[in-house]
Formats: sequence, C-alpha cells, structure tokens
Amino acid sequence: MKAVELRSFTKDGLVLAERAEPAIGPHEVKVRVRAVSLNYRDHMVASGMYGIPADALPLVPVSDGAGEVVAVGAGVSRFKVGDRVTSMMTRDFISGDLTPERQAAQNGGPLDGMLQEYAVLPEQALVAFPAHLSYEEAATLPIAALTAWNALTEGGAAPGRTVLLQGTGGVSLAALQLAKLFGARVIITTSKEERRARLLELGADVVLNYKTSTDLAGEILAATDGRGVDMVIEVTGLSGMQTSLSVLRQGGYIGFVGLLAGMGTAPDFTLPLLFKNARIRGVLTGSRDVYEDMLRAIGQHQLKPVVGEVFALADFQRAFERYQSSAVFGKVVIRLD
Amino acid sequence: MKAVELRSFTKDGLVLAERAEPAIGPHEVKVRVRAVSLNYRDHMVASGMYGIPADALPLVPVSDGAGEVVAVGAGVSRFKVGDRVTSMMTRDFISGDLTPERQAAQNGGPLDGMLQEYAVLPEQALVAFPAHLSYEEAATLPIAALTAWNALTEGGAAPGRTVLLQGTGGVSLAALQLAKLFGARVIITTSKEERRARLLELGADVVLNYKTSTDLAGEILAATDGRGVDMVIEVTGLSGMQTSLSVLRQGGYIGFVGLLAGMGTAPDFTLPLLFKNARIRGVLTGSRDVYEDMLRAIGQHQLKPVVGEVFALADFQRAFERYQSSAVFGKVVIRLD
Amino acid sequence: MKAVELRSFTKDGLVLAERAEPAIGPHEVKVRVRAVSLNYRDHMVASGMYGIPADALPLVPVSDGAGEVVAVGAGVSRFKVGDRVTSMMTRDFISGDLTPERQAAQNGGPLDGMLQEYAVLPEQALVAFPAHLSYEEAATLPIAALTAWNALTEGGAAPGRTVLLQGTGGVSLAALQLAKLFGARVIITTSKEERRARLLELGADVVLNYKTSTDLAGEILAATDGRGVDMVIEVTGLSGMQTSLSVLRQGGYIGFVGLLAGMGTAPDFTLPLLFKNARIRGVLTGSRDVYEDMLRAIGQHQLKPVVGEVFALADFQRAFERYQSSAVFGKVVIRLD
Amino acid sequence: MKAVELRSFTKDGLVLAERAEPAIGPHEVKVRVRAVSLNYRDHMVASGMYGIPADALPLVPVSDGAGEVVAVGAGVSRFKVGDRVTSMMTRDFISGDLTPERQAAQNGGPLDGMLQEYAVLPEQALVAFPAHLSYEEAATLPIAALTAWNALTEGGAAPGRTVLLQGTGGVSLAALQLAKLFGARVIITTSKEERRARLLELGADVVLNYKTSTDLAGEILAATDGRGVDMVIEVTGLSGMQTSLSVLRQGGYIGFVGLLAGMGTAPDFTLPLLFKNARIRGVLTGSRDVYEDMLRAIGQHQLKPVVGEVFALADFQRAFERYQSSAVFGKVVIRLD
Repeated sequence: MKAVELRSFTKDGLVLAERAEPAIGPHEVKVRVRAVSLNYRDHMVASGMYGIPADALPLVPVSDGAGEVVAVGAGVSRFKVGDRVTSMMTRDFISGDLTPERQAAQNGGPLDGMLQEYAVLPEQALVAFPAHLSYEEAATLPIAALTAWNALTEGGAAPGRTVLLQGTGGVSLAALQLAKLFGARVIITTSKEERRARLLELGADVVLNYKTSTDLAGEILAATDGRGVDMVIEVTGLSGMQTSLSVLRQGGYIGFVGLLAGMGTAPDFTLPLLFKNARIRGVLTGSRDVYEDMLRAIGQHQLKPVVGEVFALADFQRAFERYQSSAVFGKVVIRLD
Repeated sequence: MKAVELRSFTKDGLVLAERAEPAIGPHEVKVRVRAVSLNYRDHMVASGMYGIPADALPLVPVSDGAGEVVAVGAGVSRFKVGDRVTSMMTRDFISGDLTPERQAAQNGGPLDGMLQEYAVLPEQALVAFPAHLSYEEAATLPIAALTAWNALTEGGAAPGRTVLLQGTGGVSLAALQLAKLFGARVIITTSKEERRARLLELGADVVLNYKTSTDLAGEILAATDGRGVDMVIEVTGLSGMQTSLSVLRQGGYIGFVGLLAGMGTAPDFTLPLLFKNARIRGVLTGSRDVYEDMLRAIGQHQLKPVVGEVFALADFQRAFERYQSSAVFGKVVIRLD
Repeated sequence: MKAVELRSFTKDGLVLAERAEPAIGPHEVKVRVRAVSLNYRDHMVASGMYGIPADALPLVPVSDGAGEVVAVGAGVSRFKVGDRVTSMMTRDFISGDLTPERQAAQNGGPLDGMLQEYAVLPEQALVAFPAHLSYEEAATLPIAALTAWNALTEGGAAPGRTVLLQGTGGVSLAALQLAKLFGARVIITTSKEERRARLLELGADVVLNYKTSTDLAGEILAATDGRGVDMVIEVTGLSGMQTSLSVLRQGGYIGFVGLLAGMGTAPDFTLPLLFKNARIRGVLTGSRDVYEDMLRAIGQHQLKPVVGEVFALADFQRAFERYQSSAVFGKVVIRLD
Repeated sequence: MKAVELRSFTKDGLVLAERAEPAIGPHEVKVRVRAVSLNYRDHMVASGMYGIPADALPLVPVSDGAGEVVAVGAGVSRFKVGDRVTSMMTRDFISGDLTPERQAAQNGGPLDGMLQEYAVLPEQALVAFPAHLSYEEAATLPIAALTAWNALTEGGAAPGRTVLLQGTGGVSLAALQLAKLFGARVIITTSKEERRARLLELGADVVLNYKTSTDLAGEILAATDGRGVDMVIEVTGLSGMQTSLSVLRQGGYIGFVGLLAGMGTAPDFTLPLLFKNARIRGVLTGSRDVYEDMLRAIGQHQLKPVVGEVFALADFQRAFERYQSSAVFGKVVIRLD
C-alpha cells in the first residue's frame, strides 16, 4: 500500500513510500483511510519541534483521518465492516481528565498516523461520525474542532455570551461554527477583507479587520456595548494576551490554543490578569467522551466543517506547503482514493 | 389609580379597587405598569395555598409585570424616566445563591405586586428589557422564562443534548424557546393534537401526544436512539418522577419546577434515582444577575415569548379563570392601558 | 482452592466449595485474596433483589476484596507480583461519568467476585492501596468509602460546611471519617447510645440519638444555629427525604445512597424540594480515577477505616448474618488466610 | 479623633492628623476601629501605583480593619452596638461574580479606609467575626485570608491534593493555614531557614529553602512522587510562571495573586501552559458571601491567623516600613487603642 513516511526532521523528510499493509490484532480495527486533514501539530512533528525522538522514525505522519472499516480483529465490539470512522489524536484518552499516561499514545507521532492507505488502530481509538459528513469533512474534526469545542465548553459559550476569535485558521473557523450552535455571539478578526462575506455566511455576528483597524480593542469593546467579551479563543500565543485581556470582561475566559505568533517573551500582562480575575487555560484536544458529545451536536445540527482545499495523495507535499502558507480558508485535506 | 386587591383567600377575594398612587422614596422607582402575566404562584397566593399571612391583606396580587419608568426617587442610578422595565419576583435576590433572606421580599405577596396602574419598587428590583419586546411580552419573563432558564443552565442544555418537556404550560413553552437558543434538541409532550404545529414552529424537534400514545416512554427513548434524554423539566411534581427517570440517561438531570399534578405521595422511584445517578433539583426563579444574562440572550436572538391571550384590566377575573383552565397556549396577560 | 458460590437466590444459596484456580490471560492479574468486606449490594445479589439473571449462577459473591498480586499476565504494566491491591465494583469504570456500558461488568454479580482464595481480574480493574492499611482495612473501601467520598465531593464538603449523617452503617461511618478530612463539621444520628463515644472519637462534632430525641429536626437545626445543614448523606431512602429536607439549608445537597428503610412510596416532599432549591443525587460507587484520588487522601492522612468484626472463611454464613443484623459497628470482614 | 491621612503619593504623604468623627446616616454603622492590618495594596495606594486619582486625597488609608460597633444608623438590621466586625475591601461586592460596578467602592482608596479611630460604613460592608479572634487577628482577614481562600476553593484544595506556596508573605501564610483546614498537603518555600520550625508548626507538610536548594523544581516534584502539585498560589507574578508550570501536574491550577517579583516581561511559558492544560486565574479578594463562608470555617476550627508585629497608632510609619521590608513573619498590624 501507499504511505507517506517521515524519515528525518528536515525539509525533505517526508517521502511517499510503499509499505506492507499493517497486520490486525485482537481489539484492533483496520481502516481504509479516505482523507486526512493537516494541523499545526503535524507541521511541528515534521519539523522536529514536537520533540518526537529520532528513533521513532520512520513514522507515518498526520494525526487526523477518516475512513471505512474494512476488517475487525478478535473481540472487537464497537465497530463492524463498513462503519465510517475518524481517528483520535490521543488514542488512550477515553474520558475524564487528560493525564501524562493518556497523552502518550499519539497518532502521527510517536505512533504511526493516518497518511497511509490502511491504518490499524485499537477499536477504542476510533469514533463513528454522523451520516451527513463526507470523509473529507470528518477528517477535519479530531484536533481542530475538538479543541475549539473544549475551549467553548470550558469558557461557558451560551446564548447571550460573546466569543472573540482572532484570525481565521482551522481552530478559529471551527470555533465560529460551533459557537453558533451554542447560541453565542461571535466577533471574529481577520486581515483579509475578502473573507468577510464567508465569515458572515458561517454565522459571524461581527467581522473586524485587524490590519485596517486603527483601534481594534475599541471596536471590540464597542461591539459588546463596552462590557467586554465573555471569552477569547487565543491563537496567537502569549504575545496576544495583553490585547485579549484588554477586551475581556471581568471574570472572562481565555482559551489558550495556539502559537500562531510563535513563542518567546510577551508584553507584561500582570495587572490585567489580576484585576480582570481572568481565567486562562491551555486547551488541547479532548477525550473520546467529549468527542462523541461534539459529534452528537454536529449530527443534530447537520453542521458542515469548512474544507478549504483538497489534494490527492501524490500532491501531499503541496498540501503541507499550502497549510503553512495560511492562505487557505478552511482545512487542508489530502484524499487517499 | 386602579388596582386589583386581594382581600381574602376566597373565591371572591380579588376585587378591582381605587387606590392612591404609591409615594416614591429614595432609591425607588415609580413604574406605570402596562402589562402583567399570570403564574401558578399567583393562583396559589390568591387561593391561600402559598402561605401568605392574613395580616398581609389587602395586597395587590401578581408578581410579574412590565411598564415604563415615570419617576425616580433620590439617589436612583440604574434608571431614568422613560426606561422600559420588568419586575422581579424576589426583590432582594441580586446575585449568588438564593437564601431565606433574599427570598423574603416577594412581589405579589406578601408585598404588593403589579396588578395596579402604578407600582413603586426599589431600583435594584427592576430590570430593563430588550427593545424588540412589547410590554406584554416582557411581562411574561420574570417567573416563567427565568425558571426555565435556570433549569436549562443547571441541567447543561447544549448542542447535542436532548431536553424533555412535559406539557405545554408557561414554563414548558419558555423552556422550549430557550432550549433552542442553547442549541439543544427538544422533545415535548402534549395531550392536545392541535398544538403540534405550533410546537414545531417554535422549534420542537419531536412532539409526542401523551394521551394517544400507548408507550410514551418507549417513544421518548426511541427518539434518543435508546440513550435517554439528558434532562427533563419536570412540571408534574413527584408523581411524574418515576416516568421521567425511566427515560433519563444515566447521570441526567431533572429540573423540578412544578406541581401541575398536585402534591401528595408518589410512586416509588428509589431504585431508578439511585441506579441512574440522577440529579434532581428544585428550581425557582433566579437572581437579577441571571435574569440579565437571560435578557442578553433574548435580545441577541430577538426571541419573542408566546403571549396566549390578553385581557383588559376590567376582565382580570376572566384572565385568572382562563389561566386556571390550562386551555391557553402561551402566557395569559392582562393589559393596563 | 476454596471459594464461596452463590447457587440460588434462596436462604441456602451460598455454599463453600472447591474450585479450580482461575487461569490468567493477557492484561490480567491473579490476586491471592486476603480479605473481603460485605455491602448491602452483596445481600441484594444473594437474595435475588439485585436482578442478577439465574443463568449467571453459580457465581462467586462479594464485590469488595483486597489481596496480593501473585501472578501477572502478558502485557500487564500496572502491577507486579507482591503488590497489594483492592478490587473495584465496576471493573470498566475508569474515569469520567458512569454510563450503562461502564456499569455492566460488576464484581460479585454478574461476574465472579472476591469471596474466593484466588481471583483473576483485568489489571485495569485493580488499584494499589496505601502502605499503612491492612488487607482487612483495604477491603472495606471500594463500595462504602468510595460512595461516601462521591457524595462528599458532589455535595461540596469543606471547612465551615455541616454534613448530616443518618445512622451508623458502613457508608455513614466512612462518610464521617472522610468528612473530617475535608474539614467539615459532622452531625451524626444513632439509636444506640453506646456508640456515642466511638463516634466522637472518630471525629463527630455532634451525636444525636434519634430514638430518644423528641425533636430531632429541631436539635439538628439548633446545632447549625438555625441555618440548616449544607448536605445530607441519605441512607434511609425516599422515606426519609421529608425529614432531610426539613433540616437542609436552602440550596443544600442530599446524596441519596441507601435503602435502609426499604423501598415504597414516601411522604410528600414536593414543596420543600421546590422551595429549598434542594439538590438530590443518586450516588453510586465511583470511577477508578476518583478511587485513586480518595486513596491519596487516605494515605496522606493515614486514615484507618473502621473494621467491625472479622470472620474466618469457614464462618462466612455467620458474617452475612451479622451484616444483616445491623448490630456491628464498622464493616463486616471475612478473612481468607 | 485621630486619623492617618494620605495627602500625597510621596514618601511623606502619610500624616497622623486630627479629624472630626464621621457622621452616621441611614443604613450606616459607626465602628470604633481597634486594629488594622497592612496589605500590598495599601503600599500601592500610598505610592501612587494603584491609580487612585489625586482628587481623592486626602484619604484615610488602609483597607482592612476590625473594631466594635458603637452606633447604628436608621434602618440598620445586620448589627447592634457592641458587635465586633471587620471591614471588606470591596464594599458593594456582596455575592456572585465580581463586576466593575461591585469593584468600584474600595476601602482605603478611593474611599476612606480604616486607619482612623472611628469609621462609618454601610452596614452591608461589614461582617461579624468569630468570638475566638482578637481585633488584631480579625483585622488580618479581609484581603489576605480571603484571597487565599478564593484561590484554594477555585483550585480545588482537598484531602489528597498538594498545594504549593511560594514564600511566606501574608497571603502565603493564610493559604498555609487555610489549606490545612481543607485537608490538603502543603509544600511551602522560603529563603529564611529560621522560619522552617514555625512553618511546620502551622501545618506545612514540606518546607523547602529556595535559596539553598540547587534543584527546587526537582525537590518539589520528588515531594509529590513525580506527579506534580495540584495547585500553586503564585505570588511572584508572571516571572515565576515558568517555574510554577514546571512542577504543576497536568490540568493543575495556578492562582495568580501577587506581584512580589514586580511586573515586567516574563520568561516564555507558552508550551508548558498549553501542554499542561494548566488553569491560571487572577485572584482578588472575594464577596461577602464567600467571606462569611470562610469565617464559618475559621470559627469552626478556631483558627488563629498569624499576627507578626503590632504597632501603636503613633508608630504607623514604622509599621509601613516593616511591612515593606518583608522581614516580618505574619501580618503587620496597627492598634488603635
């Protein structure tokens, strides 16, 4: 079968290869992967930033994928041949709180991921998805949507509450769509004027252009009648915290999910953190229980995630490049026909 | 001015009378009442079931009303003349948890209520309402909608969750409308087939006729793929608890809000309460903080509460009768032009 | 090896028998059981009240036991030979919320329990216990202490809060000891005056005799300066709910754990449930995550559970009788030397 | 009467003066102040760092004090002459969440504080304290202890959980004492070896010397068997966040309460915040409801706060100097005999 292999943490480290189909054991399921989606994590893994040890190479990259069950091992009870499923980033994170033990077994590094025609996974690490979703759409959910869902529920998204989303990357778009299911108001910022119409279509209540605005914080506050937003999904990292705190209402929540502006020291936000009683939480992808909660919501509302561009397996390098360019509106997907 | 007085806990205890307009003191606001709505509580007060002491009579009945600010006392900062406001049932319940102290000062018994042309209230006991609502609509909110909102938030209404509403009284209809703002699924039961279309229009996902059904519990379970509902807003009292528990998912929530089926002993529900890990809570109307949260949600979504029938002040007796008949779909409102 | 078998749901259904030692498979652990403790559940199973199907017989009864690991199957990572462990009632309830799936595989019916010299269990269904505990003490924890812990955490036990415990059965005594770890005040009731000194030694702040008291509710309220208790661990079933609600503060919590007074209809508690905003929850034993939380607390505080009477395996019938007599102060334990 | 006045935000801005006794109005209470305690806030106010506008001067400094009710205004129902009470920093923060409105009216700047022989305060802004406390002890509670209590409850202090306290300032010592009421384990760090014995007496489970330690983080982790602490009360500001996160367990909590290490940019803590799923919250003093909860706990456990040094009113300058020196173990108190 065809599989992409990560052979080194270098520019040319990703190679399309021929591999034997993986064997299936007890309590395992063999999936014909039909689509994967790319996340920042996959870029970090491939470039060596994620801290995968070199002896884990070669490995099949990409955490998130969707496909069809083609075989089930002994003792499998959750699935049967023909079921449509997605993977989970953290295979052992079934329910409750995330612990180091539940965080260890990760798809797409250190364990083989989904960018291969056939993947064999423990049955507990797969989840069925709603019928209205295509494989491409379902493949976008495990990290981006679930992270957004975690932040929204942790932060108390609800009717009457305002959510601030910075930028229009994968987590932000998923958060926009999901926040609307919760009945929340959404203020979203972008530097790309041409995205305004799409954002409004997706349900955004207020779209602000952070490149052309001369007083973004003032505009955000004005859009909440001076009250401040109830929660922020913070994708820029610590560097944006000062701004986020300045538009947060007292006692508001900041879900810290991303590193778009990179790492490094940040402007001082000591006093606003203190005087706003702000709550900040590092948000990762969630448990299978929570994933299934989210899928019920997506199924009920027939929500369609935004697939930005779809690439054939042969063009996987181009997919990674497009992902890193931030030029794509919606998730970058690779099909494995 | 005209005012209705409760003079005794008898059938003829309610009388339309002439009263002096109430005087206004510091931190008080004078409201020209434009509309009131009736709740089960008002019936209990009038009939003596609510335990109001006889020496509180005569009193102006009806807790919930809306009107226009016509004068403000010294030191008032929350309102100005012309503001449109509603009353609150518990005048001192501003925030946090309900305590006996915060529960004491109740509109419409033991304190004078809203069925009078002018009411004087502490400024802290009034709340401004969204511009899209009429006085009649706003008058329906303080008890019925806020009780529903409390139960929905306490029970975790959210996209992907299913709420079971029994019957189509005031709290149930408010809960239906509000649950849809939270993105929840709603199963509602009625014995009146002619209400089905209206319920679907209001957003109900499933309408079941409990009079014609031969297996109501089975139908409810089927509508949740056998999983059970996530929460029930229980309006029938303890007598319905056994049924509610039978369709509740493990760990689900029952908001206990009403007494429609009266009081008295109930069928045994010991084992399902235990084995379902069920959570049951007695739900009353909420604090002003929570009321304002709800009004923000109603404003955001331009939600219109269901006004069933509107009566002139002169016909107030007829309004009470219609309320008790349970024949009205929506809230029973009395206008004070 | 020796094992007790439940052969029928009759008076003579429990029989001491000779059985082959169970074989060990992958991810399983073989435990030399040293002690078991009895719970009401074991009585319900033996008498047929628990709904175990007849085709599950014969089965080894008793859910809770402690022993020493004597062999580990392939792939076992949690334990090694020599580790001291206890069982869990619900073998698949690892973390998160209880679901029907996680509730199915129960020790001591329908699955074989601990009243046998050797038990083979999945490694995930065992938990190591603190070094200061004997096998007899550790065997008392899985149901009684964990149920008490669940109720205490759900109800918000904390310094400054008052917990009411009715009676001095296994859950109540565990709750007394654990509530003191949380810094809470404890009011406990008993009909046996001779137990007063022991209860005070265990940390009870107030001991009331419900048999000799002429106004138990009044005494409880007086012991809280009229404020009411913050939480009740309700072991009497629905029949005691009216009394519990009468001494509960507004917004208080009732953890519903037991059936001591049997099932059946209950006095009407409609109005106090409603007007007290009371929270009632059916409480079962908890997840392994929560069990480990509790064991950390027990280890930190070197807490010693109360072992009432200890029987030899040959006297197991006598142990069951003593358990049912309610005459034992502390848990009834059977040793398997 | 005697009162200290803050006349300018300069080194000599605090002056002992003669003032007329304040007049008492409706719903107000006149308190003969007997003791005040100093907090970092008082230093910030006096030095101009707190942002008090110049036109609020002269003002009586110091937020926290305790004294005796000597007169009550019209309509006062919470107190009578002779009651012993403490002030609250935020006079209007009665219950629920802190809002800008509830945060505005602050004792000791912009409003007159407690460093005067007689203070007149709204009855709602005073709280009675337990009988076992002296005025000096009670005066230490409103900011330091309540902030510690807020952080402990928000972070889930409980038996089996480990709390890390950095340093031995006022909030840390209060947190140590209160954490023990919750049954938590406490690891506390100090640079002053001579304080070790006192800290152990107060209940500390582990005392570490951060000056002499060559691997403080390693020692903290070792003291939790490698698991990490469940919560940190962070008094050093953002600069210590990296260290705090390195010893925090996954999903742990950091209560951000202080600025001991000053403000300014901080070492990058992007990745640990994210991968630890850490929760960080800015913690201020709490509502009156929460204050009363804490006082119930302090009363139940007869807890004695640590009073470090007591100064006469005439020596108030010396008290401020000693406070700023950080040399005092326990709160710095000024008596007003």
